[in-house]
Amino acid sequence: MHDLAQLQLLFTKYLSEEKFPAEPAELYEPNTYFLGIGGKRIRPAMALLGANLYTDDVADALPIAMAVELFHNFTLIHDDVMDNAALRRGFQTVHEKYNLNTAILSGDVLLILAYNYLGRCKAAYLPSLFAILNKTAIEVCEGQQWDINYAQKEVISIAEYIEMIRLKTSVLLAASLQMGAIHGGASFEQSEFLYQYALNLGIAFQIQDDYLDVFGNPEKVGKTTGGDILENKKTILLIRALELSQQNNDATLKTILSEKHDNPTDKIKKVMDIYKQYDIAKYTISQIDHYVQLSHSSLNHLDLSVEKKQILQSLVNVLVYRDY
Amino acid sequence: MHDLAQLQLLFTKYLSEEKFPAEPAELYEPNTYFLGIGGKRIRPAMALLGANLYTDDVADALPIAMAVELFHNFTLIHDDVMDNAALRRGFQTVHEKYNLNTAILSGDVLLILAYNYLGRCKAAYLPSLFAILNKTAIEVCEGQQWDINYAQKEVISIAEYIEMIRLKTSVLLAASLQMGAIHGGASFEQSEFLYQYALNLGIAFQIQDDYLDVFGNPEKVGKTTGGDILENKKTILLIRALELSQQNNDATLKTILSEKHDNPTDKIKKVMDIYKQYDIAKYTISQIDHYVQLSHSSLNHLDLSVEKKQILQSLVNVLVYRDY
Repeated sequence: MHDLAQLQLLFTKYLSEEKFPAEPAELYEPNTYFLGIGGKRIRPAMALLGANLYTDDVADALPIAMAVELFHNFTLIHDDVMDNAALRRGFQTVHEKYNLNTAILSGDVLLILAYNYLGRCKAAYLPSLFAILNKTAIEVCEGQQWDINYAQKEVISIAEYIEMIRLKTSVLLAASLQMGAIHGGASFEQSEFLYQYALNLGIAFQIQDDYLDVFGNPEKVGKTTGGDILENKKTILLIRALELSQQNNDATLKTILSEKHDNPTDKIKKVMDIYKQYDIAKYTISQIDHYVQLSHSSLNHLDLSVEKKQILQSLVNVLVYRDY
Repeated sequence: MHDLAQLQLLFTKYLSEEKFPAEPAELYEPNTYFLGIGGKRIRPAMALLGANLYTDDVADALPIAMAVELFHNFTLIHDDVMDNAALRRGFQTVHEKYNLNTAILSGDVLLILAYNYLGRCKAAYLPSLFAILNKTAIEVCEGQQWDINYAQKEVISIAEYIEMIRLKTSVLLAASLQMGAIHGGASFEQSEFLYQYALNLGIAFQIQDDYLDVFGNPEKVGKTTGGDILENKKTILLIRALELSQQNNDATLKTILSEKHDNPTDKIKKVMDIYKQYDIAKYTISQIDHYVQLSHSSLNHLDLSVEKKQILQSLVNVLVYRDY
């Protein structure tokens, strides 16, 4: 059985050999560009891992891996438009490099191409894989909508936040593992435990993302920290700090968020002081650990060898206990 | 067997009873709005017609009818953004009534919902229906891209134009009829003849659209004529007139197109005079008749009763020989 790093490599090779149609170039070339700017290929590797738990013919699942990777990139291209983001992984976003219409239409065709790759799966598995992709894709759109809604809302709860990241981020990670497993021959029941496993890991993954944006090592993370603080982004850290401020009738944080700051470092320092005061780092780590624990409880239900469970467990280091 | 009008009604009733999820309202309500502003429901009716050629259980095909209608509306919502259109059927477009991000994300989820409805088909037919929808959806995106490209190109040929409308408009009409037929029990071979039939009718349909925009009765068409002329839109009429002008070393039309006109009526009259000079109406009608003839040749290959063929043939009156 391969580990995640080997499967990432396998997928990367496959991706480099697959070509979109040549014409119309204005439709397909932007997708080739966007897929070429990288990414860790976590989702396709998870699909292959799911398959590899049940079969050695892991290459059979490559089209499913491709489907989830293309779907993920479709969401990124459209999200970048909605977020007005100029850069993604240090490269120009599609609407920035080309234009708005290209980002919309190339994104659309990428979503359809994701389904088209799914159509290359073994026919017997198509109904269940198709149902999972549909459900997941709808949830990801709903997650993006909640994210947009919450950005405009003054107060959101931790529960609302967790539900939002579950939809926006976790379900696709979970569906990737599950779809691969089903295609590899897992029973639907077993695939559901794998789904739950990856779902909770995915939530821990996103909370770790929030954590690293504030407490990460900029050299390892690859970007300056505090970006979320500057944007008043409603991460679990900010939501928790606002809750505790409210409980203590302390308006300091709200004031900092509403003020204009000439110096970004100054705002980051002020917010971080409050995070320190309320022990937000500790709370955040405890939440990460909580979802990691939850994920592990699903492993008990899996009829897999110790070796395979260990490979599954090692996902936690790639997804959660990472410093970048 | 039902006729198209009865099937349109059947679909309209079904559509009014189906509800999108309530939450997040910002995601789904714009789609409810957009589907509510009408449309002739031609594509879903064609899907039901295809089914009804082979079975009396036409209601079974309603989810497929829904899939093609939702897909069509997804393309309209995103096309309206790309075309910067403020109105659709006299109502505000989604990006105009809400905003750009809503048009993108609500459109995205509508495309996914189309696939989700397809997932409700009989499982035995899923692989072939899924393959047809994927192929068609990719072609529709390609057609939209060619349309965008050609708008910026000085000269395009009739052949390029026909290929563009085949992709942008015809394939979905054809796929609707074919998918319904397959779900009703048609052999794949028979469904291909139905596809060809509707494909050529669809091309005639689009040419008729171009024709009516210039020569239609505004009261019946429901909008002032000449809109395409004012936009220098590369319809088959303009492409043909430019070809004939070129052959006659006559720069008049090109000059009119490049000039600024204070009075729109004036520009429309000038272009129509040239259309008259080159007998463009006659040419256009001959092209419509050509594609109608082509479509009829497919009917000979169909193992269907005379009555059923007559109902199929009556599509030509709804799609092509119409005055609105």
